[in-house]
Order: sequence, then structure tokens, then C-alpha cells
Amino acid sequence: MNYTLYIGNKNYSTWSMRPWVVMKYFDINFDEKLIRFDSFANDSLFKQTILPINPYGTVPVLINDDTTITDSLAICEYLAENHQNLALWPKDPKQKAIARSIVAKMHNGYLHIRNHLPMNIEASLAQIGQIILRDHLDVKNEIKFFDEQISSILAKSNGKYLFGDFSIADAFYAPMCLRLKTYQIPTSNHLNRYIETIYQTKGISDWIAEALLEKDFIPMDEPYRFNR
Amino acid sequence: MNYTLYIGNKNYSTWSMRPWVVMKYFDINFDEKLIRFDSFANDSLFKQTILPINPYGTVPVLINDDTTITDSLAICEYLAENHQNLALWPKDPKQKAIARSIVAKMHNGYLHIRNHLPMNIEASLAQIGQIILRDHLDVKNEIKFFDEQISSILAKSNGKYLFGDFSIADAFYAPMCLRLKTYQIPTSNHLNRYIETIYQTKGISDWIAEALLEKDFIPMDEPYRFNR
Repeated sequence: MNYTLYIGNKNYSTWSMRPWVVMKYFDINFDEKLIRFDSFANDSLFKQTILPINPYGTVPVLINDDTTITDSLAICEYLAENHQNLALWPKDPKQKAIARSIVAKMHNGYLHIRNHLPMNIEASLAQIGQIILRDHLDVKNEIKFFDEQISSILAKSNGKYLFGDFSIADAFYAPMCLRLKTYQIPTSNHLNRYIETIYQTKGISDWIAEALLEKDFIPMDEPYRFNR
Repeated sequence: MNYTLYIGNKNYSTWSMRPWVVMKYFDINFDEKLIRFDSFANDSLFKQTILPINPYGTVPVLINDDTTITDSLAICEYLAENHQNLALWPKDPKQKAIARSIVAKMHNGYLHIRNHLPMNIEASLAQIGQIILRDHLDVKNEIKFFDEQISSILAKSNGKYLFGDFSIADAFYAPMCLRLKTYQIPTSNHLNRYIETIYQTKGISDWIAEALLEKDFIPMDEPYRFNR
């Protein structure tokens, strides 16, 4: 298989992170093309580079020979089908159905957390976290729900990941764990242990290390800072 | 297979419509449980009924014996896997990859259209459509993009559906066609023909007929009317 994965800045791009981490974890080789997020205006370098490849103008994009896949979840489903020996999804059909359900929720939900606590791997924003929790009940409630859901799934898991072994579900939930750490949001013991596991996971630890090397500051992704 | 599908009001619930239409089109039998949308407050009858089944408190939900699937896309993937003889996705891997990409976009995109032109099968709201097009450039641009995308896919299709024969992709794009009709939004010839095809499609025509029989008026889903 001849894969090319287009991604955005590692420090900020949660959608890019998910398929990248899946491919690294499962040793699926690919060429990486990083397109820097200068801005999302139509005349930005980012849009000028990505639009000829993907009419939606977004990353990630996976290209496999003449097939172009333009969404993080569609990419993961495509990879799971191409590499059925690797168990990218849990093998048990019931577990797989639950995994797909919670991945779909991450794909179009948790909007309050996503709006108010953008991923910023390099930053430490404990005070911002406290202010958001104080002022935004909707964010607080979503975090509570997230914590309860993760804890309940982990309590039934026969491993340290959501469904035993690492799967697409963990890749989808990893950026949320990184947000909780950046903003130092208090979480339950179950979730604390899961966040630590996520940080030490192959592929995720590589993504984080490369994010820290970027030394880039993108104002549109920095609602809480003037500079690093 | 012993399937139960929980849905909301047929006149309003686009997410419920998608898996329902897929199951009807492909003759997959199921028991339907319709939970009326009285409101989305925590003490509503709707939430009191759905929350014990689905912690997210949303429809659709598919139950198959002891497996519960809580998202429209996850349900469709589950059905595609359980009924591989039926080609719920296009059979060609490249076509399937594109279908999954555009379905994912519908799953978490087109937010301006979804916010301003909610599905309301029974209603005729031509004047509202004109006002929205006049005042909301973001909606207008999304409709233009939608039209171009559908037209470009149809131009390559060897049938009257997006990927030749009817697939999950058409079920995901059908509610958008119904919205364009309700608000009488002008569209290209390609898209006009596709909308007509959608209205005459088995499963979709049944859903529409049953929506018209509901004779229900849910204020939270009616930003543009006091009554029918």
C-alpha cells in the first residue's frame, strides 16, 4: 500500500492526529505531508495547498494510489478494511459496535469542549481551565459526561485501553485527554490513569514529541495567548 | 437478526430518517419505536424514555439482541457489516472510500444549512427560503458547494444515485434534498433531477408519507411557524 497522509500543525490539529496515530501505532507506513496552518482564509497558503487535493479544504486527507479520502473517520474505516489482520477496531462485533458509536459521538459531538478548550499540546493553561470551569456550565457538564462515559467503558475493559487493546476509539479520544492535561482539568482516578496511558502510547508519544519540536505560534489557534 | 430502531418524529428527525430509510430500502426487518419530540429538557418525556436506553439521550438507536448502537453512521456501518450480500455501501473500494468521505462530511458538516433550514417535510416555506438566501451568505455558500459536489459526483455515476445504485450515501444526503424542497431553494438541473429521484425512492417515499400522517406540531422544531 502506497499511502500519503496530509496533516496540519501537530500542536493544534486534533483531526490530523487521529489517523496519524492509528497508522503509527499499527506500523502502517505512509509519507507525511504537513501543511502549516497560516490561516483558513481562501487565499491562505494552507487553503491554496489543500483545496486542489480536497474540495472541502480540510485536513487530514489520505491518498492511496488514485483513491482520496477526506475525513478522519472515513480514513480510519478505510485503513481498518485494508488491514484486517491488524484489528484497528475491536474484533468482537458487539465491542466494535460500541466503539463505532462512541467514535461517531466524538466525530460530531462534544462541541462545547472543542470550542472552549482547543488542543494546544505545548501550552500549560491551568488558570484558563479554572476560568472556563467557573464560567461555562455547558463545558463543565460535557467534561463530567465524558469522564463518566470513559470510566464506565474502562471498568468493563479487559485492558488499559477502552476496548482491551488499543483501537481507533483510543485514537479518537486521545486529543480530548491532551486537552484535559493542557488546561489541568480535574478528572476521576479512572480517567487520570487513562490519560497517563494515552501519553505513553506508541504513536501518541511520537505525535506529542513532534508537536513540541514545531515551535510555531498560530494566532487563530491561540484564543488564550499572545505568544509562547 | 432481531432489530429494534428507536426514532423521533418523522417530520423533523433527519438523523432517525437515515438508518430507517436504509433498512426499508434493503428490506431489513425491524421493529420501530417512535419517541415523540415533546422537548429536549431533561424532564421531557422524550429524554425520560431515551436516556435509559442511550446515555447520550438522542435518536436514532438500534438494538440488536444485546448490542446497542447510538449513532446514525455507526448503525449504518453495523448494518453494512451484518448484511454484506446487500451492498449497503458501493462494492468498489474506491467508490466506497469516497462514499464514506462524503457521508462523514454530512455527519459533522453543513452546519449553516442545518441551523437555518431545519427539515420540516410537511411545510412549504418558500418565502423563508428566499429570506435566508438573501440574509445568510454562509447558508448560500454551503448550498452552492453542496450543489456543485452532488452534481460532480452524479456526473461520474453510472446510475441515478450518487454511486450508481442506492447506498448509505443517498440515505445520508436525502434529508438535505427534502430541506431544499421545503424552502424551495433554486438548484442546478443535476441536483433537481436527483431531488426528484430521492422523493421517488423506496423507503424515502414511505418515510415522507408517514411524516405527513403525523399531524404533529413541535414548537422547538418550528422556528418559522406558530402552527400548521
